Parts: sequence; structure tokens; C-alpha cells
Amino acid sequence: MIYIGVIGASTCSPEEAETARQVGREIARRGAVLICGGRGGVMEAAARGAREAGGIAIGILPGNNRKEGNCYLHIAIATGLGDARNAVIARTCDVLIAISGGYGTLSEIGLGLKMGKPVVGLNTWQLFKEDKCIEDIIIAHSPQEAVEKAITAVGKLNQGME
Amino acid sequence: MIYIGVIGASTCSPEEAETARQVGREIARRGAVLICGGRGGVMEAAARGAREAGGIAIGILPGNNRKEGNCYLHIAIATGLGDARNAVIARTCDVLIAISGGYGTLSEIGLGLKMGKPVVGLNTWQLFKEDKCIEDIIIAHSPQEAVEKAITAVGKLNQGME
Amino acid sequence: MIYIGVIGASTCSPEEAETARQVGREIARRGAVLICGGRGGVMEAAARGAREAGGIAIGILPGNNRKEGNCYLHIAIATGLGDARNAVIARTCDVLIAISGGYGTLSEIGLGLKMGKPVVGLNTWQLFKEDKCIEDIIIAHSPQEAVEKAITAVGKLNQGME
Amino acid sequence: MIYIGVIGASTCSPEEAETARQVGREIARRGAVLICGGRGGVMEAAARGAREAGGIAIGILPGNNRKEGNCYLHIAIATGLGDARNAVIARTCDVLIAISGGYGTLSEIGLGLKMGKPVVGLNTWQLFKEDKCIEDIIIAHSPQEAVEKAITAVGKLNQGME
Repeated sequence: MIYIGVIGASTCSPEEAETARQVGREIARRGAVLICGGRGGVMEAAARGAREAGGIAIGILPGNNRKEGNCYLHIAIATGLGDARNAVIARTCDVLIAISGGYGTLSEIGLGLKMGKPVVGLNTWQLFKEDKCIEDIIIAHSPQEAVEKAITAVGKLNQGME
Repeated sequence: MIYIGVIGASTCSPEEAETARQVGREIARRGAVLICGGRGGVMEAAARGAREAGGIAIGILPGNNRKEGNCYLHIAIATGLGDARNAVIARTCDVLIAISGGYGTLSEIGLGLKMGKPVVGLNTWQLFKEDKCIEDIIIAHSPQEAVEKAITAVGKLNQGME
Repeated sequence: MIYIGVIGASTCSPEEAETARQVGREIARRGAVLICGGRGGVMEAAARGAREAGGIAIGILPGNNRKEGNCYLHIAIATGLGDARNAVIARTCDVLIAISGGYGTLSEIGLGLKMGKPVVGLNTWQLFKEDKCIEDIIIAHSPQEAVEKAITAVGKLNQGME
Repeated sequence: MIYIGVIGASTCSPEEAETARQVGREIARRGAVLICGGRGGVMEAAARGAREAGGIAIGILPGNNRKEGNCYLHIAIATGLGDARNAVIARTCDVLIAISGGYGTLSEIGLGLKMGKPVVGLNTWQLFKEDKCIEDIIIAHSPQEAVEKAITAVGKLNQGME
């Protein structure tokens, strides 16, 4: 089973929430597990989408209390690790989909790429060094394309490892 | 939903495995979620029991790879934290059931009690200070009694917090 | 340089504080680095002793703020990891000296022994399984003996690895 | 005492190493503590600079073994946390100086900004969203300017909190 992390901010616009919900739905339709940070905003909308489409939503929370998790999660893990839980999210996923996002999301993008995980971006951070765009984030323009590219990237990774 | 952690060693005797499996079954029958360290021995047997009885088994692994998880887990979280993952197990559970166990289990008992979580013991560590037994581990003599006492302890805790 | 962790509760009796201070002094006299949890009680007294005797005291704190560290530390690391920081203390030390202590200390004893680190005990937890004392904690009866035994144990460990 | 984190890749060009070394020297001259990830490349060069100028260099390592630390560190903390140690570095520092860097550095920039820590950049990542540069990284053009701006930023932060 593929684990797809959906990363994004704990507050977001209605449009970002709708995108996240569609991503969650598509993850469920494709039979993958949704991993997220378990809180509001993009995380909640993605979990909602996954649950609506019959999938599984797991939240990995920074705090000590599972009740901080949003109401769409099937399983909430209260890590008590604070922001270090971002590394747990990146580590346990096969691939990450970043939806817009703030600095927490940026850190998860960095951690994911550091660990060799593919990262798909939907209107998220653009990374430059010395005025050149670093194109390691796989760009997608729709929720469906994002999940499609995420699953393809995991397939390529697994092939490369054989 | 109650989260019950089953803690014990990654290698164990057939008798300990049978106890763990019965504990896993009873957790599932009572509608609780089983959390464990995801590896072999007591963790594997408990996950097996939970799965056999139609419950949910979650493994929180120390390493980087979900494939290190045993085959009975519904969800494996690869934390990449090493032994620090023991704190995540203790933190996310409402109550712990310790089955025999080695030093990893001892650390989880300590972390659980530190965090104010009830700990039920089945033939596990006995703790003394200044030659007196410290009786904070709730003793059980059968898998059924262990799960019964675990659920009762969570109920009391929640009452106390109201 | 040898790193010796002094573990114990954040509140303690005047006698325990005096023991911890003597342990800290002896660690400094022997040219080792003192690692502790950075807070009050045994940790503070040990750091004080190390500082008084011209040694180095490092505190590895659970919270987000270095100011939570006691005033005798040379360096405070604010991990933000909560109780998972206990694993960092055990991991970075060559040997642990447990002075009395509560459940946090018990977890550090478990983590240390799990990692193969020698643990020296001064009036600390006694561990039993099936009514038999498990004698893996090296017993000491004075601060000087504790540090002496700690350094000897590290020497033996290093010899065994050669 | 101010703790300044120097973040950057574990392999780097001679020019980047020289920059890092100058940053380390300047941190020491200003009486601040240098925190780094403890490994090679930028981390080693910065630690070297701090040590040469009579300062203190602390390394917070991802692995289990202090010996993985570079030879210029005064204190090495082996966290055993893998990439989650990046959050410990960001958390314990008052301010971060990023020198060039790869994805680990990017994650630390994200974690630092998430935690409200000032981040000073020397030829490091440039962050864009929706084709606009996000200017939260304080740009510096020399090692001296970087340390100067880092210390000024901490001062402003502390003033704001009073």
C-alpha cells in the first residue's frame, strides 16, 4: 500500500481547502493511505476528502493530545515531539503532496527531498538558488494530476531500487 | 475510541506470544485500537490477535522503513527516531499493557507512568525502591483481566478529569 | 572525553541533592563531561557540583526554552521533544549514574540499558522479574564509588569493542 | 549568551568552507555560542572557525555515535533522531545563519521560520510563492554582516517580547 503525505498549512483559503479535499478523495480512490499532520486547514480538508471517498486518513500530531486532531482522521498519533514530528511525516510517507503551505510545509518539503522522497507541488513553494529555479518539486496543476504524478513517482522509485 | 498500547520484547517465548495474541484479540473485541512498536515477538503476536478478531493494529517503528513492520499491522509508522519512538508510543496511548518485556519495555513503562498513563502488567517488571515494591503497575493475571483493567483505568482517569 | 549522564528527579531531598552535587564534583575532577536533563532537583545539584569543581555541565531540556535550564549549566539544549528527550540523554552518554529518581529516571535507566550503556545506581530503582532481582544496574554506595565505577565500566566497554 | 546556529551542507566548496569558517570566527569574537549539525562541510568549517577564535562549538548529530562529529566540536550530542534532529537545532538556537546548503538546510530554514527564529542567509535558498520572492530570510553579503545581522535580529526579538 502506498502512503501519500498531504502537507499544507493549518489555516487555508476555501479554494485551498477544496483542492486538499479533492486530493484526499483521489488518494482514497487510488487505494492509497493518506498521512497528514492531523490539524486544521489543508490537513483537515485532505482527511475529509479521504474519508468521504472511503479511504483511510492518519494524522501525526505535534502535541500531546489526540483530541487536537481533526474529526476526519481514522487514527491520530499524538507524538508530543513538537515540530520534530514533521520529520516523522516525511519519513513514513512514500511521497509528499504539498498544497500551498507555510514554513512548516517548507520544512517538510526539505525533509522529504533530503530523504529522497518525491515531492509533488500544487501552488506551493518555489525554490531558487543563485537565481535559478531548482526543479526538484514535481509540479501539478490539479488534484488528480498531483495524485497521479505522486503514484507514478513512487513506482519509478521502486523500479530504480530493484 | 480507546488506544491501548501493548508493549513487550521483539523476541519472546511461545507462551508470551500466546498471551500477547489473546490480549490483541480482547482489545479488538472491546472495540479499542491496538498500538504497538510494530516489530516481532510480543508486538507481532498482539497485532496478529487484533487483526484476527477484526480490530485495528498500528505499529510505531523505530527505523526508517515501513517494511520493518510485522505483517499483521494495518498501519505502520516509520518514525526514524530510534529508541525515542518509545516516547511516541507512550504518548499516543490512553493506557499500556506490558507483557513480560526487556529494557525497551521498561523504558516504556517508565515513560507511561511519567505521563500519567495507567500501566497494566502481565508477568512484567516489578519495581522496587529502598526494598519496597512500588505498586503503580496494575497487576493482571490473564489477557482478559489485563484488557478489562486497562479499560477500567482509562474510564477512571477520564472521570477524574471531568 | 567521557560523557557521564546524571539522571534523577526534578525535585529531591537535601540529602539527594548533596549526593548529586558530590557526583557532579567527582565527574569534573575526573575530567569527564556531565550531561543531565537540565532542570531542578538532582539535575541542578549535579550541574552545580560539576561547575564548582571546574567541570562542564550540559543540560538537555524537554521544553522549547533554554531559560528552563538551571543556572549551573554551561550549555543548555532546548530540544522541544518532551519526554522523548530522555532518549537523547541516554544516547549521547557513555554511561549513566542514576540517583534515586522517579519514573522519568526509570525510563532513562531502561533506555540506557537497552542501548548497551552501563548504568550505575545510587539508591535508585531495583528491578525484579518473576521475583528475582535483575542485577544489571551497577550498585554504588557513595558518589566517589559511583563515578569510579562509571568510568571503569566505560573502559571495559571500550576494551570489549576493540 | 546568544546561541547562533550555522546551517549548511555536509560537503561544500572551498569558498563555502572559508565563508563558514569566517562566520564561526565572528560568532566566537562576538561571544556567542555556535550550534551546528556536527558533521563535515559547512558545519565543520564553522566549528573550526569558532574554535580558532576561542569560542565554543556544539554539534547536534543525527546518529547514535559522538565519533561522527567533526574534530573541532567542544561538545557533541548524538541524538539518534535522524533528520528529526534538525528540529532540535532550530529549537535551541536564537537565530540561524544559512550558508548555501541543500535540502537539510532548507528544512532547517523552514523549521526556524516556523518557530519564529530569525534566519540570516549567505548565498542560500531563495523562497518564492506564486512567483513572488518571500523575503523573510535576512540577506547578508559577508560573514561579518551575517553575524552582525543575526545578533541585531535577536536583540529586536527580545525587545519585542518585553
